[in-house]
Amino acid sequence: MNKRLQRLVQHIKSYSAEAYISFSTYDIRYFTDIDAEGCILVSSDQCVLFLSPIYYRQAVDAGNRSVKIIETSKGLEDIGEFLKNEDIHKIGLDYKDLSAKQYRYFANAFQCINMTDVTKTIRMIKEKEEINTIQRASYAARNAFLKVYPLIQPGVTEKELADELTYQIRKAGAQKEAFETIVASGKNASYPHHRPTDKRVQNGEFLVIDFGAQVDGYNSDTTYTFLIGQKDDEKRKLFNAVFYARLFATEMIAPGKTKVKELEERARKELAKYGLDKYFTHSLGHGVGLEVHEFPYINLKNDMVIQPNMVFTIEPGIYIPGKLGIRLEHMVLVKENDAEVIAFTPLIEAI
Amino acid sequence: MNKRLQRLVQHIKSYSAEAYISFSTYDIRYFTDIDAEGCILVSSDQCVLFLSPIYYRQAVDAGNRSVKIIETSKGLEDIGEFLKNEDIHKIGLDYKDLSAKQYRYFANAFQCINMTDVTKTIRMIKEKEEINTIQRASYAARNAFLKVYPLIQPGVTEKELADELTYQIRKAGAQKEAFETIVASGKNASYPHHRPTDKRVQNGEFLVIDFGAQVDGYNSDTTYTFLIGQKDDEKRKLFNAVFYARLFATEMIAPGKTKVKELEERARKELAKYGLDKYFTHSLGHGVGLEVHEFPYINLKNDMVIQPNMVFTIEPGIYIPGKLGIRLEHMVLVKENDAEVIAFTPLIEAI
Repeated sequence: MNKRLQRLVQHIKSYSAEAYISFSTYDIRYFTDIDAEGCILVSSDQCVLFLSPIYYRQAVDAGNRSVKIIETSKGLEDIGEFLKNEDIHKIGLDYKDLSAKQYRYFANAFQCINMTDVTKTIRMIKEKEEINTIQRASYAARNAFLKVYPLIQPGVTEKELADELTYQIRKAGAQKEAFETIVASGKNASYPHHRPTDKRVQNGEFLVIDFGAQVDGYNSDTTYTFLIGQKDDEKRKLFNAVFYARLFATEMIAPGKTKVKELEERARKELAKYGLDKYFTHSLGHGVGLEVHEFPYINLKNDMVIQPNMVFTIEPGIYIPGKLGIRLEHMVLVKENDAEVIAFTPLIEAI
Repeated sequence: MNKRLQRLVQHIKSYSAEAYISFSTYDIRYFTDIDAEGCILVSSDQCVLFLSPIYYRQAVDAGNRSVKIIETSKGLEDIGEFLKNEDIHKIGLDYKDLSAKQYRYFANAFQCINMTDVTKTIRMIKEKEEINTIQRASYAARNAFLKVYPLIQPGVTEKELADELTYQIRKAGAQKEAFETIVASGKNASYPHHRPTDKRVQNGEFLVIDFGAQVDGYNSDTTYTFLIGQKDDEKRKLFNAVFYARLFATEMIAPGKTKVKELEERARKELAKYGLDKYFTHSLGHGVGLEVHEFPYINLKNDMVIQPNMVFTIEPGIYIPGKLGIRLEHMVLVKENDAEVIAFTPLIEAI
């Protein structure tokens, strides 16, 4: 049983459960290194994977001998049967990842124990190998971006840039993009989750590009904002407010001391100096790993103390309705005494 | 209130519910034409959308006046509050789309009514406009494929083909690929859900390419299989078995008469002639629309009678462990009296 499983088993015991059951592909990958949809069951003496025939052969051929793989076409019924045969009655579940249908099935025949967020908390602290993979994803994304950089000119469309960047991310050694690339210009950039359109980029507009790469299941997530063509002092001021909000939030990270919520407080304080905090309509960031959005969530409600080997984004933004948007996002790796920006790229960090 | 909502309201009444609540982005898009993550509430006299600040402004600017849009950052609590204010006690829910956490919240304070699969059943029968959009997606995918076709040569890697095809799908007018393009060669093709690797395509191998495009939210889904280089009679026989399994299943479609399960029975019967049915390890197909996999599911358990304006795939395959895989998939549109293959492409339909 590997270290990750051992950690989970400790939690299972502390919740007085007899097994933990998850349908999360991220949990499956984290605990078994197998890339498949199905169900994982972990108890103090075994790790079992229930897979449909579509995934079964591939998982068996992957050759992870510490996992018992069971082929199933009946889904929940087979899992229930297995639990009964193994005399397991108390099962831990993550209520955010489970469907109501699955929950109702288990609650009908077993004692369900609320272990929501337990595996997300385990996955929050990265191992060295995971950090290396996240860095590889970040550099693949950065290298792809540098290929697309020359195309950023008035006249190019949002979608042309997004399609080209997505393609280059794959060519740069990533399996794929971490999420749908966002390219938003002018007033479209005032929507944080804008989808690229055929709108052409114009002089004097802000252009927001939010993108990431996925390597061996691990993701990167970065956002650049450019001011196209003519710069002016008013726009420089807006950009710099966001730039310093990110910088000061990043610089204050003291592992073991700083609380997550203090980062957003710091970023908001900086934006407030220019009366811009009201335009910052989302939270400051999120952990990144097997999931693009995972623990720790960086927001005003999160009292968690920052710890070494967390990896998360810092991404303040301002969104002025009908006018413009600016978002600057980088990923930080928390070290023993401070935080380091992953794939820091000085040349494109300022307008 | 549009026709789609009217249909849903009929179902709500027939289940004696007072409102239907869904967190499915597909339901939101289908009933409101708004592309956002959030929660939709439908009752006999209103359609309400609860959106986080990230999506709120964009949805309001989209200008669908028949939907009331409420900005919320508290999620479930705000919805619960709304239900109490509106004096709604009985809510219909889809237990497959809902998380256990959401279900437990509602079940604690409201009477939950199991309306699982109701909206999927409504969405199963396509309107003319939806069919047009699916056809556009299918042609975008086909046109993209024709650009990549010349690259299919010994020596090219699976990933090179997948990356290029994905790129061309976007260039051909699709927003993006419908799902991660599958390119699998040789024994990799024996895994139905293989992910493209750096393995090079070789002479004498079967090459499976499973791909689709997404246009205005609607998807296409097609699989071609090629025999690279030298053909021989044994391999031709395998290919033709799958080819005829698909052909005969498609030809037997008689709307209002044929049951869904009969299609898979027919395909299996054809494969059985060559002793190949044991290698057909998944079901025959699935509906395609806003979701890549939706109603109707074409399998041996489904007694549903085929109806006009269904759109679904027919995709028999054989997977011989450690050796090879062949899958041939097309999408059919059910007409008044028979079924028509969407984006039929005779040139690449046979080896």
